[in-house]
This record gives sequence, structure tokens and C-alpha cells, in this order.
Amino acid sequence: MTAVARPAQNATTGIGLFGLGVVGSAVARAIVERHRPDDPSVPLAVKAVVVRDLELKRAVELDRSIISTDAESVIANPDVGIVVELMGGEDPAFDYISRSLNAGKHVVTANKEVLSKRGGELLSIADANGLQLLYEASVGGGIPIIGPLMNDLAANRIQSIRGIINGTTNFILSKMAHEGADFDDVLAEAQSLGYAEADPTADVDGFDSLYKIAVLARLAFHTEVSIDAVHREGIRGIHAKDFRYASELGFTIKLLAVAQASEQSGLLARVHPALIPLDVPMASVNGALNAVEVVGDLVGPLWFQGPGAGPEPTASAVLGDILRIVRGGPGVATRTNVPARFDIASMDDHVCQYYLRLTAADRPGVLASIAKVLGDADISIGSVLQKDIDLENKTADLVIMTHPAREANMQNAVGVLKQLDTVVRLDNLLRVETYPGRP
Amino acid sequence: MTAVARPAQNATTGIGLFGLGVVGSAVARAIVERHRPDDPSVPLAVKAVVVRDLELKRAVELDRSIISTDAESVIANPDVGIVVELMGGEDPAFDYISRSLNAGKHVVTANKEVLSKRGGELLSIADANGLQLLYEASVGGGIPIIGPLMNDLAANRIQSIRGIINGTTNFILSKMAHEGADFDDVLAEAQSLGYAEADPTADVDGFDSLYKIAVLARLAFHTEVSIDAVHREGIRGIHAKDFRYASELGFTIKLLAVAQASEQSGLLARVHPALIPLDVPMASVNGALNAVEVVGDLVGPLWFQGPGAGPEPTASAVLGDILRIVRGGPGVATRTNVPARFDIASMDDHVCQYYLRLTAADRPGVLASIAKVLGDADISIGSVLQKDIDLENKTADLVIMTHPAREANMQNAVGVLKQLDTVVRLDNLLRVETYPGRP
Repeated sequence: MTAVARPAQNATTGIGLFGLGVVGSAVARAIVERHRPDDPSVPLAVKAVVVRDLELKRAVELDRSIISTDAESVIANPDVGIVVELMGGEDPAFDYISRSLNAGKHVVTANKEVLSKRGGELLSIADANGLQLLYEASVGGGIPIIGPLMNDLAANRIQSIRGIINGTTNFILSKMAHEGADFDDVLAEAQSLGYAEADPTADVDGFDSLYKIAVLARLAFHTEVSIDAVHREGIRGIHAKDFRYASELGFTIKLLAVAQASEQSGLLARVHPALIPLDVPMASVNGALNAVEVVGDLVGPLWFQGPGAGPEPTASAVLGDILRIVRGGPGVATRTNVPARFDIASMDDHVCQYYLRLTAADRPGVLASIAKVLGDADISIGSVLQKDIDLENKTADLVIMTHPAREANMQNAVGVLKQLDTVVRLDNLLRVETYPGRP
Repeated sequence: MTAVARPAQNATTGIGLFGLGVVGSAVARAIVERHRPDDPSVPLAVKAVVVRDLELKRAVELDRSIISTDAESVIANPDVGIVVELMGGEDPAFDYISRSLNAGKHVVTANKEVLSKRGGELLSIADANGLQLLYEASVGGGIPIIGPLMNDLAANRIQSIRGIINGTTNFILSKMAHEGADFDDVLAEAQSLGYAEADPTADVDGFDSLYKIAVLARLAFHTEVSIDAVHREGIRGIHAKDFRYASELGFTIKLLAVAQASEQSGLLARVHPALIPLDVPMASVNGALNAVEVVGDLVGPLWFQGPGAGPEPTASAVLGDILRIVRGGPGVATRTNVPARFDIASMDDHVCQYYLRLTAADRPGVLASIAKVLGDADISIGSVLQKDIDLENKTADLVIMTHPAREANMQNAVGVLKQLDTVVRLDNLLRVETYPGRP
């Protein structure tokens, strides 16, 4: 064994920033305040910043002469050793990251979208240049989850990752659960509080969670997961009623992002609202918190929880990656050379229990007709609640909990159920998340 | 910036093991099964093993010719690049680790005792030799906690670490809480199940937690914490009654290990049973689970939870450290050169609420006499429960919850209370753990 390469003491590392919004400003502030050029441990200096709009006010004191709208001021800057990309989105981030790598600079990014869509290419470019591309801040804000998967848990064959990795939707669902409120009202409140964007699509339709679980899945399972291969459903279809019925049945509802893999079944990644038993820890992750459960074959189940967003937590993750590079961290970029370990599984083959809420005619024989459709699709019923009988329209809510069934069978059954003249409306179909060892 | 140093591909790293008990066997098994010499990523080979008794049966298939009782077979072995020390205890582990480092070998250890007592010396020796001394497995079994503190959270000023880091005592306390059982009965059961040692002192008297919190405190606060400076109390004094009363008051009881530091108050490390509000996550960590809450100034509060012991989780951590070294991990050993950041605080100055249970005479004026003693010591009473009135002996249990008070004042008051003729016995004094933002 050779001795560990030591970073040169007292050599200041130049940082180039793409983006100086709230997160970029927090990163710049942390660098300026914590790692001054005369810092005895890891001296850093912000050498160049690229922004879209020079006129915006910034929450950090930087020499204005280093702020520019010209990407080359970072990419071609000989004083910049590490590029930090905090603009988000696929374009022009892909271009800036790839050009920075090809210009010999390490890159740290918080950009889950570009990583999920084109991370494989970017990691290969980093690898070809012998450089690092680190992305702890892309998932779970300041929660160390990428680092542990890359390093601490490297000896494990990861079996599953399940998480609540979008704070906005968790804030909304927690409010709905605790206040009995409906989606639209809580979304409006979340928007007024700044927890949700004016266009909430990326969050509430599950895209943000999808990007993040694709990033985690590539890393944990050494397999490229196209975002098109991830099953995605958002939370717009969840109603106050669903929380009420779920609660009666011993569950709450969360937007889960899951990636599971085994030799037999392949790798399946999915993002969808799920019924979670009230007494498992995931059910108690409320508000804007994030939590990730990782199961490794050696270590067993681990739990990571913390603030999943916010400028300072994100700066914690970005700075952690910068310090890792400066101190000479492990060359994890070489992982891209490993052949894909798993086939991608189809959601059709996923097996779980289902929660089915429908508005049905309130007359004899209705349940029999529904049960027959399910039975024909090889789905057996676990329990049925009849609720909210509407005497005027002669309808009632039927809440059916099934035994474990195949997704494809359930989708077929749903198609048939919608045609039954006894079924007024199929209101919701939700999956129940499986916890081994539970009934 | 220079490019990242790449480990030589396909060069097998030789491992030398001290100890081949259940943990050592699990580590050897993981190496043999996961990282064969023809492994394309990180090939490893066990080259030498030192045991105390050659005749013991081992749960791993190794060439018997590499197993020896002679420490030199590892230390002086030119084929060994990384030494893994899994014997535990201070001696001869200190000698073996220091000699291995001086012989040019990286060291990975799970030994919290030697690290807490002499870790500063060992890290200096590693540093002087430009070698790594890694110890993820020494705290929290397979839970990544050392790695995140060293790397992912390096940009943070850590404010506090609070954890349940001894599975044996948590198993015992959880059983007592849920079954109303008394300590001696549950300890006997834990011993028969293999969760507690025949001599349970290291666990139930808090030494194991003390070693671990000292290791975490050194790393998180860049300050050497002598084990004599850590306040330590075990769980032998906890009775079924205490759980009953605590529960009525909205608490459970856990053995906590805590290290907190600030510029104003210095660094205080303490291990003691504590009342935990039932609705904070720490209250729900049951059985042999471990959990650690870390608060960093940038990231905020983080939560790490998982199996805190066991051969496979420990092997996960040991292998993670080995892979980190082989891939060329960061030179964290250089941390020892940083001057101590905090003064060590005295437990006398710790401020918290207290739970005081005493057997008092059941007659008028008793509470007044007790309240006067507390008041004279500047301690005010929050609430009082009178319980279990014993008509024959004319005594009752008094459970007093105080407002926040200084430890030294409370210890003085306790000395005076014991002298009161109205106080038959001072049964228990427990601290209530403070959670900011709670009443």
C-alpha cells in the first residue's frame, strides 16, 4: 500500500459558481465565512460566478467584478478548480457541466434533473477526464445519503431504497392528514407560504421525486434507470376522504419514491402516493422533512432523516462535496464502468395490496358484481367499507382493500369496473406499501 | 487542481486481521465472498489472521496456515496493506494498532475502548506515517455516522450529538417500559437471549456508551475528550415504578449519550438515563436499535437509525472503511493537527429539569419541608405527584418534577434532602432531556 496522497496545505482552491439564487448565495456565503483564503485547513475562494441576470440583488457580499453572464468566465477560468452548478434544469446545465469537466474542472451539482436525465453521460465524461462529479445536494438536501451509498455502504448489495424525498408534497399531505383539508386549499396555502411554486407541477405531479429516485437507483444498483422507466403518479387525486378512510383502516398517505432490486425480479423504480401503516416510522415523517430508508444485505435497514431542502442544508451538502474533492476523496466516478447489474422490471409485475375507492349504486348485488370483476382478474378482497350513503342519489362510497395482487391484473380490473353500470365513478386507486413481517 | 489519484486497478490489497470471533468471521466472510482476488473492482485477500486460541471453531473458511497467535504474522507481513483490529479492549489492541501503523499499514478498527482512551495518540501516529486509521464500526454498528461526520457534514459546526448507542441497555429499557418488568428480571432475560453479557457492566453501567460518545465528540468537536471528563451513570437504578410515573407525566426513559458544545459553555459529554418526551423520535427507538441525532449549524437536525450491533452490520462498516482506503479516501487523519476547539465543561453547570422520586412520610408539612430545601438551592418545583400511599408505614411516593436547575444545585439539595427526617429514602434522581421549543 502506498501512503495516502495529502492535499497541498494552504493552497487555495478556486470555486466557480453557476447560479446565485438563494442556494447559490448560501453556498457562496458559507465559503466566504468558513473557508477564507487564509484558512489553515481548507482555504477556498469564489473566483467567478455566472448568473442569468446581473441586476438581481444577492444575499451575499461578493466582488461584483467576478459576477458575469458569460459561462466562459467559469469554464475557461484557470483559477477555478471546482465548478459548482446550482442553476437546475437540463439546459444549459448539461452543457456547462460537460464543458467544465472537459476543461479539467471537478464539478459539484445539486441538479437532480440533469443527473437523472443525462447523469450517465456526465459521469462518463468525468471518468474519462479523471475528475469527480459529486452530487450529495441533489437528493435529500443536507441529509447525507449519496455519500453513504457511495462510501460507507459500499460493501453492501443494496436491496431497497424507500423515501419521502419531496418536502412540498409531504407538507401538503401532512396538512391534509392532520387538518382534514382538501388538496386545492392546502396547495394554495403552501404556495402563499413559499413551500410550493406558482407552477407546482414538478413537485405535486411527482417529477422531482422521480428525478431523485432515478439518481439514487443508478448509484445504489449500478444500473442506469431511464426516467421513462420510472412509474410516476402525483398527489392531485388524493382527497380528504381518502385520509379519513385510510386512517380508519390504520394507514396514512405519503408520496413515496421507491427503488427495489433483486436478481429474480430486476430493478423497479416507482413514485406514487401510498398507504403507509400508521405505526411504521415513515408514517411519522411530517411537514417538509425528508426521510430515506435504505436496506443493505449486510447492514439491514437504515434510516436517514432531516431537512430535505433549504439554502443552508443544501450548502452543507455542496460544501461537503467540495471539501471531499479538496482533501482528495475517493474516485467514485469510476463506477460508470461497471456493467449494469439489473434488468429493469415492469410496473405491471409489481405486487401489492390496493385501496380502491368508488362511488357505487346503493342497492343489493352491487358488491357481488364488483367482487366478480376483481375475482376474474385474480384479485381477492381483504375488506370492504361502505360509507357516506347518499340517499338522494342512492349511491355510497365503497372502500375496498384487496389482498396482494399484480399491478397488471388490477389495471385490467379497473378498466372493467369503470364499465359496470353499478359503478358511478372510480374515485381513487392507491397502493398499500408492503412492510415485510406485517399482515 | 490535479486529477484524482486512481487506485491501481486489479492490484489485490492484502488484509491482516486481529480477531476472528463472530465479527471477525463476518468480516473475513464478506471479504472472501465479495472481493475475491479476481474481483474487477476492489480485489481483496485475507493474508494473515491473529487469534488468541488456535483451536476455536471459526464460522468462515480460511486457509489454516494463515491463522496464528503471533502478532508479527500481521504486523511484519509485507503482503498486508490494511490491518483490521477486532479484538476490542485497550490492551494489547493499542500495541498492535500502533505497531501496525509504524510498520506502514493502514488500520481499520471497531474498538471504541482503545479509541476513546488512546485514540488521540493513535491518530497522531497514523498522521505521522501518512496513513489512515478509520473506525466507522466503533459506534452504531453499521449505521454510517463516523463517515458523515468526517466527510459529508465537514462544512458544519456541529452543535450537538445525542444518541441511543448501546443496544443492550435499550433492549432492557424497552422491555421494562412495555412490560412493566423490573431491571433484574429483564437483565436475566437479555442474558439468556444473548443480548447481554454474563458480566453486563460495560453495557448497563454505561461504559460502552461513554467510549462511543467520547469517540464521536473528538471527531465532531475537534477536541480531545478524556473519558474521565464524561459524566457517566448506568441504568441499574431504574425501577418499573419510574417508567410508570414517567409515562403518566408524558415521558419514557432511555440511556442517552450526549455531547454538546458551544463557544459560551464549552464541550460537555454525558451518559445517563434520561426522561424523553413520548412524542419525540428518540422515544420510539426500541429494542436493540441505535439512533443518533446530529445537529449541525448549516444542516440543522439529522437523524441516523439502524442496527447498532451484530456481525453483519459491523462487517458492513469495516468493509466500507477498507474500500475507502483502497479507493484512496480522504486523509482525515490530518485532523489531529487542529488545535482543540472547545474547553471541557463541568457537569456541575449543566442545566435541565429533574425527576425526583422519594419515599416520604405521609403527613402534613412534608412537601413544605422538601420544597424549602429545593427553594434554598434555587430550584423551583414544576409539579408533584403523590403515589402509592403505604397506610401501614405511613409513607408515600413523591414524584417531583422541577423547573430547569443547575446540576450542582440539585446535587447540593439532594444531600440536604437525604438528611430530612421526613424523607425515608431518595429513590431516584433522573434528568429530563431538553428539546428546544418544547415546554
